[in-house]
Amino acid sequence: MSHLSFAEAVAADLSAVRSRAPLVHNITNLVVMNVTANMLLAVGASPVMAHAPEEVEEMVGLADALNIGTLEAGWIDSMILAAKAARMRPIPIVLDPVGAGATRYRTLTSQRLMAVAPPTLIRGNASEILALDGASGATRGVDSTAGSDAAWGAAGRLALQIQGSVCVSGPADLIRSSETDGGFRVLNGDPMMTRVTGLGCSATAIIGAFAAINPDPTLAAVHGMTVFGIAGELARQRANGPGSFAVALIDALANLDTPTILERARIVRQV
Amino acid sequence: MSHLSFAEAVAADLSAVRSRAPLVHNITNLVVMNVTANMLLAVGASPVMAHAPEEVEEMVGLADALNIGTLEAGWIDSMILAAKAARMRPIPIVLDPVGAGATRYRTLTSQRLMAVAPPTLIRGNASEILALDGASGATRGVDSTAGSDAAWGAAGRLALQIQGSVCVSGPADLIRSSETDGGFRVLNGDPMMTRVTGLGCSATAIIGAFAAINPDPTLAAVHGMTVFGIAGELARQRANGPGSFAVALIDALANLDTPTILERARIVRQV
Amino acid sequence: MSHLSFAEAVAADLSAVRSRAPLVHNITNLVVMNVTANMLLAVGASPVMAHAPEEVEEMVGLADALNIGTLEAGWIDSMILAAKAARMRPIPIVLDPVGAGATRYRTLTSQRLMAVAPPTLIRGNASEILALDGASGATRGVDSTAGSDAAWGAAGRLALQIQGSVCVSGPADLIRSSETDGGFRVLNGDPMMTRVTGLGCSATAIIGAFAAINPDPTLAAVHGMTVFGIAGELARQRANGPGSFAVALIDALANLDTPTILERARIVRQV
Repeated sequence: MSHLSFAEAVAADLSAVRSRAPLVHNITNLVVMNVTANMLLAVGASPVMAHAPEEVEEMVGLADALNIGTLEAGWIDSMILAAKAARMRPIPIVLDPVGAGATRYRTLTSQRLMAVAPPTLIRGNASEILALDGASGATRGVDSTAGSDAAWGAAGRLALQIQGSVCVSGPADLIRSSETDGGFRVLNGDPMMTRVTGLGCSATAIIGAFAAINPDPTLAAVHGMTVFGIAGELARQRANGPGSFAVALIDALANLDTPTILERARIVRQV
Repeated sequence: MSHLSFAEAVAADLSAVRSRAPLVHNITNLVVMNVTANMLLAVGASPVMAHAPEEVEEMVGLADALNIGTLEAGWIDSMILAAKAARMRPIPIVLDPVGAGATRYRTLTSQRLMAVAPPTLIRGNASEILALDGASGATRGVDSTAGSDAAWGAAGRLALQIQGSVCVSGPADLIRSSETDGGFRVLNGDPMMTRVTGLGCSATAIIGAFAAINPDPTLAAVHGMTVFGIAGELARQRANGPGSFAVALIDALANLDTPTILERARIVRQV
Repeated sequence: MSHLSFAEAVAADLSAVRSRAPLVHNITNLVVMNVTANMLLAVGASPVMAHAPEEVEEMVGLADALNIGTLEAGWIDSMILAAKAARMRPIPIVLDPVGAGATRYRTLTSQRLMAVAPPTLIRGNASEILALDGASGATRGVDSTAGSDAAWGAAGRLALQIQGSVCVSGPADLIRSSETDGGFRVLNGDPMMTRVTGLGCSATAIIGAFAAINPDPTLAAVHGMTVFGIAGELARQRANGPGSFAVALIDALANLDTPTILERARIVRQV
């Protein structure tokens, strides 16, 4: 597969997200729900936030993907209910282990979610992925203290464990699956993306939207991260700082077209 | 009443909101509280968010309108406490049945709120209004699957039931009251308003602000939806996408002046 | 100390925040967590939001400052756990008594937090500070009904009570400490800052970031409020209304440089 064909597949999946508008059911953290919803709308998906235990299973029944992002303590039971319902249907589950490694509670909660109802995809920064794999002390607050490459091995082990795919986001995004030894490296993105809160969770949600329309979770992650990364590059050109960057990022996601994807996508297969 | 006099009434009410800055007490969902608060500030109202059962009744005692927007499960009891207190004073209550029809729990909760302490106004999309009226399966996530006109009859029945007014928002906004057979149709707005999360809830909150200064809930809804719709049209002219649209919408609400309202208001009486 | 040296100290502290990126742990209200996180990122700090009782003490163990902003009723116990842990380390605690004076519950909760684990700093508007000091009926919703100067005496008494510092924000920001009779007056800022939700809480969080790098809480408050105020002035120049103002404020915080601080800082010692 050449670079061009990778890029063409990204564009095709973005078109599919836009035409099918998958309903992505999010049970994520309070800080970022608004930005996550707007990013999903911008990419062409349809977000719904629902965490009441009385309704999560029914909402999963309508959804095309489930995004669970720790951590609201009171919502863990709802996440488990929803994840079990999602596996029954089945629809893809994406897990965002926010702050795993920062506190023992966060690490254990993510590991518990993984055990009870293994997600199709995990997306975290290097520290979070390392923590899920058993390394300690790697996360400061919710920000990574390690480069993506440090989590290459951990990502592979976690992918095997969940029999799915793992995305380590960072200056380069790494995506590994349980099925092959290697993986992918997405080089799109902009450092400004670390200056806006909620963009990690938004990346996870976007991957969820792509997983709803692409049955291969590895490719869903590669394509979603490429789209998000290119939008970040375009947003940077219009931004005066992180405030206007966040606004321009939503615009860029909504306006992203195929020629721009073909010109900018930087996806590398890594053996 | 000519179109011009409708528009003049809109402008007069917007001036009243700005000069009296009604305190709108919101118990709504977590995703949209920030955008709702900013929209209320932009229109000239004073938002307060308070959902602790220990204080909601006291806060209602200070408020000029109460906005309850399902659905945070833990807050239903607070919504009921607040709504009962609001009826005692009385101050207008606006209800936003977010996602009614998507899950049985959401439909039943909204219906329970309507039964226990009937709101003065309900604002929902067509699917939500149809679901409250007893139709099933009409909502996908929180987005409507039906056009506004499909809910014309349902809106009339609900208005009778609550002895108040019902607004069905959509490409055309329909407003019906319990007192007359016909209703109003507001033609202002822009499709981009469906691309930003929280704008339905913001519309409800804005109607609440207008209901605080206009004793006729039908006119409050007509005027509030007209103001919001015109602001949407103006925002579209400055927007490059849904991100900059959301920003421009707040600016447009804050800057909206009488000549622009007189020029743009499109309100039609429907028999 | 001349005005220039005050301004130089502001610039030095902003550089310290940027180079040390203090981790500010926030347990604040739901409406504003997103904007607070983005403002902290913009000023150069590292925000983390964590309120689960299972983890707050451990997260405090990683943090450089703790920001508790009433009021989420379910989180009061977590705030107390966190505040006690913060005093043990010790790291500075900033308290934002949101809506104190509006309801008895809010006033009592803030007073309880002050009694159980006295904060290093309190930041509120005049009504809130008056309410904490025992005045009644001073707050309407969460907005002040009094000018800052009316709370000069109350601020001094509260500072003595907590053996720390108190900031009354408003058209002029007043900062008083327990150690001297007088205080400081920061004249930077823009009235548009009252038109965006969450900027009071953001001010408190920014003060927390400065308190993490400056051991004198009074100076931390003076420097943080000056930086925030100047950013507000710069944002106003680029804004068409409160929507674009909020965006420009984040940009201005992120881009603020020493020459601009030296040119614009307006800090007055008040005896």
